[in-house]
Amino acid sequence: MERIDGRKPDQLRPVRITRNYIKHAEGSVLIEIGDTRVICTATVEDKVPLFLKGEGKGWITAEYGMLPRSTGVRTPREAARGKIGGRTCEIQRLIGRSLRSVVDLAALGERTVWLDCDVIQADGGTRTASITGAFVALVDALNRLKEQGQIDRIPVSDFVAATSVGRLNGRIYLDLCYEEDSAAEVDMNIVMTGSGRFVEVQGTGEEASFTRQEMDSMIELAAQGISRLILHQKEALGAAAAGIGGDSVEAGAGNQK
Amino acid sequence: MERIDGRKPDQLRPVRITRNYIKHAEGSVLIEIGDTRVICTATVEDKVPLFLKGEGKGWITAEYGMLPRSTGVRTPREAARGKIGGRTCEIQRLIGRSLRSVVDLAALGERTVWLDCDVIQADGGTRTASITGAFVALVDALNRLKEQGQIDRIPVSDFVAATSVGRLNGRIYLDLCYEEDSAAEVDMNIVMTGSGRFVEVQGTGEEASFTRQEMDSMIELAAQGISRLILHQKEALGAAAAGIGGDSVEAGAGNQK
Amino acid sequence: MERIDGRKPDQLRPVRITRNYIKHAEGSVLIEIGDTRVICTATVEDKVPLFLKGEGKGWITAEYGMLPRSTGVRTPREAARGKIGGRTCEIQRLIGRSLRSVVDLAALGERTVWLDCDVIQADGGTRTASITGAFVALVDALNRLKEQGQIDRIPVSDFVAATSVGRLNGRIYLDLCYEEDSAAEVDMNIVMTGSGRFVEVQGTGEEASFTRQEMDSMIELAAQGISRLILHQKEALGAAAAGIGGDSVEAGAGNQK
Amino acid sequence: MERIDGRKPDQLRPVRITRNYIKHAEGSVLIEIGDTRVICTATVEDKVPLFLKGEGKGWITAEYGMLPRSTGVRTPREAARGKIGGRTCEIQRLIGRSLRSVVDLAALGERTVWLDCDVIQADGGTRTASITGAFVALVDALNRLKEQGQIDRIPVSDFVAATSVGRLNGRIYLDLCYEEDSAAEVDMNIVMTGSGRFVEVQGTGEEASFTRQEMDSMIELAAQGISRLILHQKEALGAAAAGIGGDSVEAGAGNQK
Amino acid sequence: MERIDGRKPDQLRPVRITRNYIKHAEGSVLIEIGDTRVICTATVEDKVPLFLKGEGKGWITAEYGMLPRSTGVRTPREAARGKIGGRTCEIQRLIGRSLRSVVDLAALGERTVWLDCDVIQADGGTRTASITGAFVALVDALNRLKEQGQIDRIPVSDFVAATSVGRLNGRIYLDLCYEEDSAAEVDMNIVMTGSGRFVEVQGTGEEASFTRQEMDSMIELAAQGISRLILHQKEALGAAAAGIGGDSVEAGAGNQK
Amino acid sequence: MERIDGRKPDQLRPVRITRNYIKHAEGSVLIEIGDTRVICTATVEDKVPLFLKGEGKGWITAEYGMLPRSTGVRTPREAARGKIGGRTCEIQRLIGRSLRSVVDLAALGERTVWLDCDVIQADGGTRTASITGAFVALVDALNRLKEQGQIDRIPVSDFVAATSVGRLNGRIYLDLCYEEDSAAEVDMNIVMTGSGRFVEVQGTGEEASFTRQEMDSMIELAAQGISRLILHQKEALGAAAAGIGGDSVEAGAGNQK
Repeated sequence: MERIDGRKPDQLRPVRITRNYIKHAEGSVLIEIGDTRVICTATVEDKVPLFLKGEGKGWITAEYGMLPRSTGVRTPREAARGKIGGRTCEIQRLIGRSLRSVVDLAALGERTVWLDCDVIQADGGTRTASITGAFVALVDALNRLKEQGQIDRIPVSDFVAATSVGRLNGRIYLDLCYEEDSAAEVDMNIVMTGSGRFVEVQGTGEEASFTRQEMDSMIELAAQGISRLILHQKEALGAAAAGIGGDSVEAGAGNQK
Repeated sequence: MERIDGRKPDQLRPVRITRNYIKHAEGSVLIEIGDTRVICTATVEDKVPLFLKGEGKGWITAEYGMLPRSTGVRTPREAARGKIGGRTCEIQRLIGRSLRSVVDLAALGERTVWLDCDVIQADGGTRTASITGAFVALVDALNRLKEQGQIDRIPVSDFVAATSVGRLNGRIYLDLCYEEDSAAEVDMNIVMTGSGRFVEVQGTGEEASFTRQEMDSMIELAAQGISRLILHQKEALGAAAAGIGGDSVEAGAGNQK
Repeated sequence: MERIDGRKPDQLRPVRITRNYIKHAEGSVLIEIGDTRVICTATVEDKVPLFLKGEGKGWITAEYGMLPRSTGVRTPREAARGKIGGRTCEIQRLIGRSLRSVVDLAALGERTVWLDCDVIQADGGTRTASITGAFVALVDALNRLKEQGQIDRIPVSDFVAATSVGRLNGRIYLDLCYEEDSAAEVDMNIVMTGSGRFVEVQGTGEEASFTRQEMDSMIELAAQGISRLILHQKEALGAAAAGIGGDSVEAGAGNQK
Repeated sequence: MERIDGRKPDQLRPVRITRNYIKHAEGSVLIEIGDTRVICTATVEDKVPLFLKGEGKGWITAEYGMLPRSTGVRTPREAARGKIGGRTCEIQRLIGRSLRSVVDLAALGERTVWLDCDVIQADGGTRTASITGAFVALVDALNRLKEQGQIDRIPVSDFVAATSVGRLNGRIYLDLCYEEDSAAEVDMNIVMTGSGRFVEVQGTGEEASFTRQEMDSMIELAAQGISRLILHQKEALGAAAAGIGGDSVEAGAGNQK
Repeated sequence: MERIDGRKPDQLRPVRITRNYIKHAEGSVLIEIGDTRVICTATVEDKVPLFLKGEGKGWITAEYGMLPRSTGVRTPREAARGKIGGRTCEIQRLIGRSLRSVVDLAALGERTVWLDCDVIQADGGTRTASITGAFVALVDALNRLKEQGQIDRIPVSDFVAATSVGRLNGRIYLDLCYEEDSAAEVDMNIVMTGSGRFVEVQGTGEEASFTRQEMDSMIELAAQGISRLILHQKEALGAAAAGIGGDSVEAGAGNQK
Repeated sequence: MERIDGRKPDQLRPVRITRNYIKHAEGSVLIEIGDTRVICTATVEDKVPLFLKGEGKGWITAEYGMLPRSTGVRTPREAARGKIGGRTCEIQRLIGRSLRSVVDLAALGERTVWLDCDVIQADGGTRTASITGAFVALVDALNRLKEQGQIDRIPVSDFVAATSVGRLNGRIYLDLCYEEDSAAEVDMNIVMTGSGRFVEVQGTGEEASFTRQEMDSMIELAAQGISRLILHQKEALGAAAAGIGGDSVEAGAGNQK
């Protein structure tokens, strides 16, 4: 009952997080999860969107893109088509919401942090890799702000990371690669914090549905995967993670009720 | 501990489904859930999108819009802005996926059914009302196809409906109205079938997160609400519901594991 | 020599005007003329377009849309096509001009009233129904401003309404339904005030032309129809019409020279 | 009671029509009416729009543009703004309809004639000058088709030309220049054939209205002006006008009932 | 070895520059080079683009367009296609850069001069004719500013003009007409000043390449042509050219090293 | 007289070409020239653009993009702005033309090769790096076609590469980094083949001009740089370069006349 790439059902693909990948950005990361590779950069801008003007708080926003040949078949550029597609919009909003959930926007001050997640090679799970990588880029950018004396502390209350789970031929698997994802009957993306709280749960049956029991299994599996991804973030950040709030990851993510 | 409109935490707003609301459409419904009013029409087109050409199966797709003054503050038209926003895209895709989950696309034949959901008055829950109403319009359109002898049976395997649940000041509520929705820390939209299976689960914490226990409570509450919405659909459809598959709704939606 | 729906050549279709149709809007009307149904809302905004900044006067503007399945064959959304078509533009400008002709913009103050006319079911004459209905929504919105003490009087000098006339198989008819309109050789839309003055006369021969005598007959017929439409507006508004200027409608609209 | 440019109320500005102005086009005209100068070209294309495919008839369509500095204040390019404005749309449709009214589309065969009207200097009346000039360009293009043996006769049943009239300080004037047009309370554009039939009548009161008597006077004045414009067209075309149908222009345009 | 239009390899087509062509513009020129005809207007605006705000200097920018039937086959309008094509962009930027190279932007003050170059008839070399004509329109607009006392002197340091050269069947030709340009293996556009300095050199081999020697010959030929074009500019401007800097054109343009 | 990064005036930055960088693409390269890093992928598509249909030959086209934070200050996405800017267009066209100049399109057969050049880190010279890198990706993609037996030989007649030169404070430098490029008075991009022929020469003075002698020096310097870049291409390709036509690179690129 092996997976296409030989993994066990509850096994993540190899994870690699390379910090300071782009010299210009305040924070930048190359995150590799299996063959999925995403460049995540964090840009600090000293203003906020119109709807927050004068509120004394900051904003976190995200943009997402795929290089045309990050995919098996070339994907036409959204710039050439003149508009951003629905899928891109959904992902951008998801990344932004996920990171905002662990940031104290008031403590950030009237600043916007832009998180650009650009997929240079896609093999499933690009949106969850983006969230996981963008978190690290964000922390780096905030550390720089702190070093410049612009903020007193890293206004991040907890780690946040994401993964996918899915049902394929009736079985539940963690961290689907593209081939698994394409064939899955049910696909679930889960975003969780280091203390095991949920930020986002998106389960979708395309021309299919799922039972309560299946949902519970998928959530359990995702929680385990995310706790391991957060260990990778911690390892990558090292001392740069100091000051981030949140309970210990080991303390049973996904199990507390 | 009363709700703003006097409802109990697990109480739906009044539901009214008016069939044959627009004379031109093959199926059309005005669905009213509290002060939320959505016109749902179903249009049958004798061709399929490019990606399905020659596959011998059909397609269900949805479009969603809001009249400018369906909202408390006037919302500029997407036509005037020259593009469809991210929120609209997300909702359109959700409605389409939800309905496809209960339709046998092969039995539909090479046809597309367009479901247009236009909100004429918004008071929270417009996307879930759209799904619930569009299902009825779809069944009417399919019945017409059957009457015309173009299909042998209604290729619908089950009912499908949707509602929202949310956490507000730490408590869980069913079917949020706009005022509740705006203040909610966690917002969840759930789509389920008549037999109590999940089609879509979307839980989101905006600048917040939620525990596993809270998620379980929200799902439970939503399942109860959806089973009541499906009773409304059945009542509205009457004899037109004949031939739709699916277990009895009463048989414990949301409880089977 | 009967019309397709049994009317006499100079007969309007049944007219119904329902006020306060949308709870959020400052003024809102459902106008039904035969099977044509249009939701007209009036929104008051406390600013004026750029070109009027600092002029001390207000503005009336209109937007028009059709739900996709308001028509016999589904009309693709202008939002999806990414732009507003020529026909929509023409209609929007016509509605705006027509209503401005009876409003004292200086007395309105630096405010914009947006009139949104959305056709939910189309059967010919949607632009003239929009004008006729939007007038009522406008008066309601202005009454509310007056009640709030923001203006001293309703700055409306007269009623305004509109109808279509056309030549079909050489004969002249009032208030064309869609089937008549499609077959008409000449189509004329006329906007008039309660005192029988013209605001707009648009006569068009598509691949045809018309004589002076035919034009005179069409104008005569339209004037009669409009005077009856204004009676419907008066009846709908009741006491809310108090303070609107203009001569009595009965005094021979269209006949004075 | 003189006009700004010294004309009498019923006097046209000087008219000049230069044929064969652009070497590439099948028909091309520079029309000058006072300081208004428009290049009109006719392009013959051997196909028809989708909606006419296989109907065995042709189509006449028009496009209109203004050079940025044709106007007193520079007008931004519609190409730079990425869309065609409402005014341009209205004018394009008007020109197309006007010319189609005198063309036998079946006799034209499955061809489209594109009429491009580009204003190089604007001083009021650009749309009516466009119609008047485009007619001449169209006849030239059709003559070329006839010379090539592709059609047997010029499928044009009559001349067509257009002018504006307006009310300014309560008086009625023919052929408004820009300064008059800007100040006019009522503006009317009239399109008529050589035999004195109406093709289009568009009278508009911007923040004003007009009586039946005023409308009659405006129409009378326009009819006189148009009969003189058609004489200019005839003179310009000379022998090329042979075979165009229509009664003699002198025979009382605008007077028959 | 004659050229298609009988010219010698180093011969320009007939050049005609008509000033004050459009009454509204501060500067306007019709430039005719053979059958290529371009209207160039200069518009002075009392503000600068955002990126120059508060820098105390001005800006020169250009826009370029072609009338649809300026070309042998009708070119669809960029306005209708909703965007400006790559070729137009390139040309606009080239014209702007070329003229900025001879203008003292600081002496211009916080003003923008817009140069609109609209091709009414195209026969090759429209971009170089645009530069050559726009220079004259610019000088006229600046003279007007000087007459109004807004600037003390014409802030133009030198003349600037442009021409094309190309290799066709292995031979080098000056000032290619359309037919030559289409068949050329190598195409070069050169912009030079009155003192023989280069502003822009753009040599392109489409599916071809060229040697150093060929490039030298092309540049030599272009320099000779440009010195003659500048004589045309001087003749057209007459006294209006007073105060423009730059060495004498006769003094060996293109030869100094 | 040292350069900002310590290089000599005629020194290239370090060059690194990594093949097979993206697993999905038929050819893919990461090219690094100093801190400029560009991912170039080649995609083979079995059809040609409309204008080549049925001509029996192929096409090479290029697209170019920059990740938002490839630049010092974040550059907004062209997808978000809804259109491709003029600079991007120019670069795309330049890359496409440059590569077509060395490809035998007839021998390619009815195929299109898309070259996507995406800048992940920008430090000057991104367009010339794109050309140099895309050539290698193209050769890899063509080798794959040959291995699949779809073409008999690599239809590439010569190497092609590009670099920039410029004048800065009156001196001429090779391969400008961003800081040099921003300050340069004259900027030149040169594309040459392995046999020392020119494909494209683009010299631009922004608010400046240059003499013939300066141009000659710049071209000389560029030719030397390009011959060294082609050695890098050869080294990277190794055996994969077999079968590419063109004289030996060492044989005096840029010197033959």
